Amino acid sequence: MKQSVLFTKTSRDISKEAEALNHKLLLKGGFIDQLSSGIFTLLPLGLRVVKKIENIVREEINSIGGQEILMPALIPKENWQKTDRWNLDVAFKTKSNYGKKEYGLGWTHEEVVTPLVKKFTASYRDLPKAVYQIQTKFRDEARPKAGLFRVREFSMKDLYSFHKDEKDLESYYQTVKERYYKIYEKVGIRQSTYLTFASGGEFSKYSHEFQMISSFGEDTIFICDKCEVAINKEIVKGESVCPNCGSKELKEERAIEVGNIFKLNDKFSKPFNLTFTNDSGKENIIVMGCYGFGITRTFGAVAEVYNDKNGLMWPSAVAPFAVHLLNLEESVKKSAEKIYENLNKENIEVLWDDRNLSAAEKFKDSDLIGIPLRIIVSNKNIKLGKLEIKKRALKEPVFIEINRLVPELKKML
Amino acid sequence: MKQSVLFTKTSRDISKEAEALNHKLLLKGGFIDQLSSGIFTLLPLGLRVVKKIENIVREEINSIGGQEILMPALIPKENWQKTDRWNLDVAFKTKSNYGKKEYGLGWTHEEVVTPLVKKFTASYRDLPKAVYQIQTKFRDEARPKAGLFRVREFSMKDLYSFHKDEKDLESYYQTVKERYYKIYEKVGIRQSTYLTFASGGEFSKYSHEFQMISSFGEDTIFICDKCEVAINKEIVKGESVCPNCGSKELKEERAIEVGNIFKLNDKFSKPFNLTFTNDSGKENIIVMGCYGFGITRTFGAVAEVYNDKNGLMWPSAVAPFAVHLLNLEESVKKSAEKIYENLNKENIEVLWDDRNLSAAEKFKDSDLIGIPLRIIVSNKNIKLGKLEIKKRALKEPVFIEINRLVPELKKML
Repeated sequence: MKQSVLFTKTSRDISKEAEALNHKLLLKGGFIDQLSSGIFTLLPLGLRVVKKIENIVREEINSIGGQEILMPALIPKENWQKTDRWNLDVAFKTKSNYGKKEYGLGWTHEEVVTPLVKKFTASYRDLPKAVYQIQTKFRDEARPKAGLFRVREFSMKDLYSFHKDEKDLESYYQTVKERYYKIYEKVGIRQSTYLTFASGGEFSKYSHEFQMISSFGEDTIFICDKCEVAINKEIVKGESVCPNCGSKELKEERAIEVGNIFKLNDKFSKPFNLTFTNDSGKENIIVMGCYGFGITRTFGAVAEVYNDKNGLMWPSAVAPFAVHLLNLEESVKKSAEKIYENLNKENIEVLWDDRNLSAAEKFKDSDLIGIPLRIIVSNKNIKLGKLEIKKRALKEPVFIEINRLVPELKKML
Repeated sequence: MKQSVLFTKTSRDISKEAEALNHKLLLKGGFIDQLSSGIFTLLPLGLRVVKKIENIVREEINSIGGQEILMPALIPKENWQKTDRWNLDVAFKTKSNYGKKEYGLGWTHEEVVTPLVKKFTASYRDLPKAVYQIQTKFRDEARPKAGLFRVREFSMKDLYSFHKDEKDLESYYQTVKERYYKIYEKVGIRQSTYLTFASGGEFSKYSHEFQMISSFGEDTIFICDKCEVAINKEIVKGESVCPNCGSKELKEERAIEVGNIFKLNDKFSKPFNLTFTNDSGKENIIVMGCYGFGITRTFGAVAEVYNDKNGLMWPSAVAPFAVHLLNLEESVKKSAEKIYENLNKENIEVLWDDRNLSAAEKFKDSDLIGIPLRIIVSNKNIKLGKLEIKKRALKEPVFIEINRLVPELKKML
């Protein structure tokens, strides 16, 4: 894409409301726009990152048997009443102007997926099943803050699993847990993300959150460095102890929840009477698990981790483009154009800053946007038959022969 | 995908409420599930079709300079008040439980995109611009009906364009019009879809709808066969006349609106004061166009057109899978499995009915689902080293040598 065409721009002056790093950096780079408190538009660069995160999540969840669907956001009052969740403050509600129909906007989807799966599940042969969606959720947060961390509208992957017994649920729960690590690894925040023991609600001792360390996070966790797990302060009574090894040498950190996995057991299957006939012809209750992954929150989390004082530094797996091409002078625009076309032909995603701006301005913008590799086309180097390539994360550039560009680039991507 | 794993099933008994063909067929085939009146879940097969339609639309709109973004559904009251659209019955409204913030759920997005583009537009050099999204819309329809045709929650592509003058708008408007034909051609409903003259609102003589002929449609149109355009009954005063050639030989049809394009001129740029500095330094108002395309409605429209008494018949461009593989006996399951793996390796999308069911049941299901090509693996043919391939739309099968499968298939896809 040519940057002259991109309708967004970077901006140095942003709202003073923006305190969290992800908020500041994503506004400055032109990745998001704030419509209202806790409500954001994903701009072209931001949407590209989000789609890459979505596709990583999709690939991994498909590979553990997840089947993708898309449930509605308008969920009838009756469904929420079945589970006694109609009157929660987290829900935005709306009412039809025609008739009496009332809806709660989906902030979670057990009330939809449970009766849905019921329609297609009769016997043990239909189990286990895992169904997920990547969808917009609405939550009436009291005080939206910290950029994409606490918002009223966001994108989430929610997976629900259905099992014949707790043993089967436990086994799938472990599978998802392992897969979540892989997702965080792929998007680039594995190192700062901890499996965190949290409240299990009515039925389980614990649920598990995935908490990424961030000073702008909502939660306080205690990390056991030996076990590489943490415990959420919310469930600590008295002294904090590692739930794995019993160690009391824990490190307190602020953190943001980027995922959670939860054994629901029969909490939702019971009110919807979701049962199956087992292999001896007896009717049993189905047990469920649910597994959330914050897509837009992870987008913010990656921004929070990958940056320096000049701007963002996207890991390649989720970068909006692989390459940022900059011609420093108008005189070498033709050379840059050739490279641009060549990279497009090679299916290497490239943003070309083709604008008639000074080198200094282009470098500043490029730092703000944070594309991992930068190709610099300058008069001086072109005369030598060379190009300068600089990784966003490194200080020193390398110089390569123009005609070696594609193979050299492919090694670096 | 293996059909034994697919969590949905076809069903012959569906709600009597379902009258429209798309409603019946998509329920029976297991493409959609109805949560409430006018509110549907897209099941795995349905979501696959919808994503294919989305990608066709995306590709075409990108190729005419559209830049994809994603705007929120929660749109603050203040934005709607600016354009005097807060009190329309079409809008679902909601209110925060904290503070006084009120929102209208997005049924259209001029109130978001106009102030957004304003932030990045200063001079004539920033124009023209075209920005779009594929997003969930909410409309409080008085009487939802006709399956996916009149619903309260749906997916839409909405494109907005921004121009320095009406001439430039007119030229882009024509570009979009032509591109819409191409999209309908690709998804398979071009033949039954007419450019239809409709009300232009306050500023233009006409807007244009794309109306597909369907007895379950909402609108009545008069078609001029000579010009291949139509006029919406809503704007006909007295006798109906072709707006193109003046002919009075028009044919009345029921139709469903699957797209519309509209010159907004300064209707929205004025209240948001969206201006630019022209090349002589003077401040001028920006003129806008908007271009809607119903994604889920088109999904329904394709279903409405492509079917026979036994079920759906997807055109390949939007089919959930390219190939439906059926083994008629358990004894040839191993052979079917080999073919399944082979096709997956070749990246040919295949649904394999690996269930232990009778041939008759598999054929019935395959007809309902409507995948364009069927590969039938039977004891009888395997012995002869052959496979039977049948197009869903044709009566007669062809027989091919097993080892010729992939090349033969590629010719037929």
